[in-house]
Amino acid sequence: MSTPPIQPLLFIIFGGTGDLARRKLLPALWRLLVHDGLADRVAVLAVGTRDRSDEEFRELARSSLEESGADPEDVDAWCATRLHYQMVSDGPGGYAALIDRIDFLEQQHDLPGNRVVYLALPPSVMESTLERLAKAGLDDGPGWTRLVIEKPFGHDLASARRLNELVHACVDEDRAYRIDHYLGKETVRNLLVFRFANSLFERTWNRDHIDSIEITVAESIGVGGRERYYDESGAVRDMIQNHLTQLLTLVAMEPPVEMGHDAIRSEKVKVLRSVVPPQPTDVVYGQYLPGFVEREVHGYTDLPGIPTASTTPTYAAVRLHIDNWRWQGVPFFLRAGKRLPERLSRIVVRYRRPPVCLFHEECPGHENLLVLTLQPDEGFDLFFSVKTPGEDLAISQIPLSVRYGDFTPDITGAYETLLRDVMEGDQTLFVRADEVEESWKIYAAVLDTDSSDPYPAGTWGPVAADRLVESSGAVWSETELDMENPVR
Amino acid sequence: MSTPPIQPLLFIIFGGTGDLARRKLLPALWRLLVHDGLADRVAVLAVGTRDRSDEEFRELARSSLEESGADPEDVDAWCATRLHYQMVSDGPGGYAALIDRIDFLEQQHDLPGNRVVYLALPPSVMESTLERLAKAGLDDGPGWTRLVIEKPFGHDLASARRLNELVHACVDEDRAYRIDHYLGKETVRNLLVFRFANSLFERTWNRDHIDSIEITVAESIGVGGRERYYDESGAVRDMIQNHLTQLLTLVAMEPPVEMGHDAIRSEKVKVLRSVVPPQPTDVVYGQYLPGFVEREVHGYTDLPGIPTASTTPTYAAVRLHIDNWRWQGVPFFLRAGKRLPERLSRIVVRYRRPPVCLFHEECPGHENLLVLTLQPDEGFDLFFSVKTPGEDLAISQIPLSVRYGDFTPDITGAYETLLRDVMEGDQTLFVRADEVEESWKIYAAVLDTDSSDPYPAGTWGPVAADRLVESSGAVWSETELDMENPVR
Repeated sequence: MSTPPIQPLLFIIFGGTGDLARRKLLPALWRLLVHDGLADRVAVLAVGTRDRSDEEFRELARSSLEESGADPEDVDAWCATRLHYQMVSDGPGGYAALIDRIDFLEQQHDLPGNRVVYLALPPSVMESTLERLAKAGLDDGPGWTRLVIEKPFGHDLASARRLNELVHACVDEDRAYRIDHYLGKETVRNLLVFRFANSLFERTWNRDHIDSIEITVAESIGVGGRERYYDESGAVRDMIQNHLTQLLTLVAMEPPVEMGHDAIRSEKVKVLRSVVPPQPTDVVYGQYLPGFVEREVHGYTDLPGIPTASTTPTYAAVRLHIDNWRWQGVPFFLRAGKRLPERLSRIVVRYRRPPVCLFHEECPGHENLLVLTLQPDEGFDLFFSVKTPGEDLAISQIPLSVRYGDFTPDITGAYETLLRDVMEGDQTLFVRADEVEESWKIYAAVLDTDSSDPYPAGTWGPVAADRLVESSGAVWSETELDMENPVR
Repeated sequence: MSTPPIQPLLFIIFGGTGDLARRKLLPALWRLLVHDGLADRVAVLAVGTRDRSDEEFRELARSSLEESGADPEDVDAWCATRLHYQMVSDGPGGYAALIDRIDFLEQQHDLPGNRVVYLALPPSVMESTLERLAKAGLDDGPGWTRLVIEKPFGHDLASARRLNELVHACVDEDRAYRIDHYLGKETVRNLLVFRFANSLFERTWNRDHIDSIEITVAESIGVGGRERYYDESGAVRDMIQNHLTQLLTLVAMEPPVEMGHDAIRSEKVKVLRSVVPPQPTDVVYGQYLPGFVEREVHGYTDLPGIPTASTTPTYAAVRLHIDNWRWQGVPFFLRAGKRLPERLSRIVVRYRRPPVCLFHEECPGHENLLVLTLQPDEGFDLFFSVKTPGEDLAISQIPLSVRYGDFTPDITGAYETLLRDVMEGDQTLFVRADEVEESWKIYAAVLDTDSSDPYPAGTWGPVAADRLVESSGAVWSETELDMENPVR
């Protein structure tokens, strides 16, 4: 696939001095622009509510870039010439001043008026900012304007619809880029190639050959620092509805008509529309107690700002069924949790067992497992059975393994990939309006709970989650897999 | 699978001072018996036509074992107490003396009369030896008698039938062990597990998913030292009809009713009976010219003892079709040759390409390849397509690899495996009478040729062999695979 050139543009970051901008966006922008020799084509305008000078912002940016490992000398010139800051006030004239500044910078840098507007904002100010941008005529510039919206995209179906209306008041859908940074991961992009360039896998990627599929995003960290947001959200909103459901659509979708454009997103929506909304019996909620994860840690309700009686789930496991020709009858287990034993994101495809057991004493655990690891060590493992050398007909389960890190030491970061796509105008890895609404629809009945099963920090969640998979004849992957030393 | 115990027995080797006995059988016997602490249960009697004392033979055995890496101290005791020698003369009393000696040794070593009779003999004396053994009442001992027959088993269908009659005059078929030492290889035994314990592979192991299958046994050595035998045999008799066809049956057979006993061999025979005998257009013969294989080497007809006008093929490539439900339409390419660039035995399963090419510029060479390597570095490689990290949607072909040597450093040798099976009475890896006859039937029309295409030593055979696979839309695997550095 040839990539379109990046046209000169102004990159405007709302929340430009916030945590996300400093830790992720500025370093990704810098690497992307310097790596590709595009520094001259792109100027950056950070927008915030505090009064700062360009120089103050540049100082902030310099320290962020140096923390991310950039060479201070390289950084200085870029910051001094390409970075700017603009305060927007709450008053009616605030956005007019912003538009003026944009026009001014475009003249100063000889830019044709193309704009990327990146909303790196907390949910609480997202709606009001979109309203103002719409009124200010964001899309009235001489070039194109692309709008990038950080997650979370809404709190439920109604708020997501409202957000979509506001987005469309600013730009058309083909200029809207809803970020899900899981989709920037190399392994996820690789999923498309893995599935559709390998007939051995694609032709067995269905209910005839696959027994169940697990998607796990485990975090060892707790909620610390995001208490207020988290207690109103919980694991289903924070992880399952967006990241894990996005992974689900990529795993389950039909082959698209073509790569790119809207073909892939249309197939993803078809998956979402075929998902049977889960019932309460398909969901297990958990909330972590004090425990040990590398060190002694507090329980969720011990955190400052979390009500003692909070029932917000810090863990959720959901069993989904997809009612279409490919997947009918195959359970998909989605699971996300905080304060689990390790940081780990993976997709596990469990093939059906051989129909007949020729090697009698060795029958338990004969299914092939395909493990797609996103974190921490990106790669593939295909577990299959071989004869144990020397012994007569004993069976061992061993992995065929590929680690991306072995293949190339320099994996492009998620944000770098996504920012490049925005600049190039490729929406493939961004979430479309109907996708996000369909995704909220699926979970409408299970977003909240008035009871979460307790689990000690440092364990794999509540026991009820084991019962959930066992009732479908499966087990969670960690009971079988230890990448260093598979137990079977 | 539990293994039956090895009962006490006398191991009788005809050709006991020959090359095979010294290089392979004695070292394998020694390792097997010492490794398993069975030395006390087995005595060895070497049989030859020259007059030697036990002590002379023991000296010969000691030097063979020490050459194979055995500790001289360990060897001495075993040789001095467990090895014996008996001359058989051409005269009528020769075999009577042998039977007397056998009885005597069985008493001396307190053995119950179980006998393994191993015919490590050249084809020229095989028939006459079998005739005499039958007359001498080989099978009249107080225990069981198992007869092991080295390859080649016949020169064509008629001679194989004659040999089978002679074998059956000595022992029943369930006591006959026709050796094909390729079947002792760990990877081949593993094929059974690989196919029938992994539903991902077994369920795609058919004409719906597989495009073609290649079986290559390449040798870098020439014919030196075996001129007379080889010039009367050629590549089809020497390799294709036996070794490669045995591999073919293991690759192509249906799941057996059970492992072991005769179930596997019955399935192998079914494959052979479904093979369409190749026509002359399905075969390419080659004969090596002078060239370079690690050093300058002579051509085949330059060898002493090879007629200048010899048309004996030192290379043969055969396209086979199997007319059954699983394989109809899938070409199997069998190829064996001497003085090829390297020593290499492998089975290459070429899956069908994806039906649609979503990654437009990358279409050539998208099929998955499964490579089962027998020599020199036993293992599996599954070549599949992944997205090249960093680049937009470029595709790389990379292998998921398992090497048996990494898995366990101590792979049991082929002869050790086979000798153990004989002692245990497991015929699974030996060739049954009907198998060998069916195999000769297949090649009846193509055993000999009056013209072989010349190829320089150190190349992959005649150009006509490339045309043969290309006419079926395939290529030989070496044009795509370089294990160190796959070109795609």
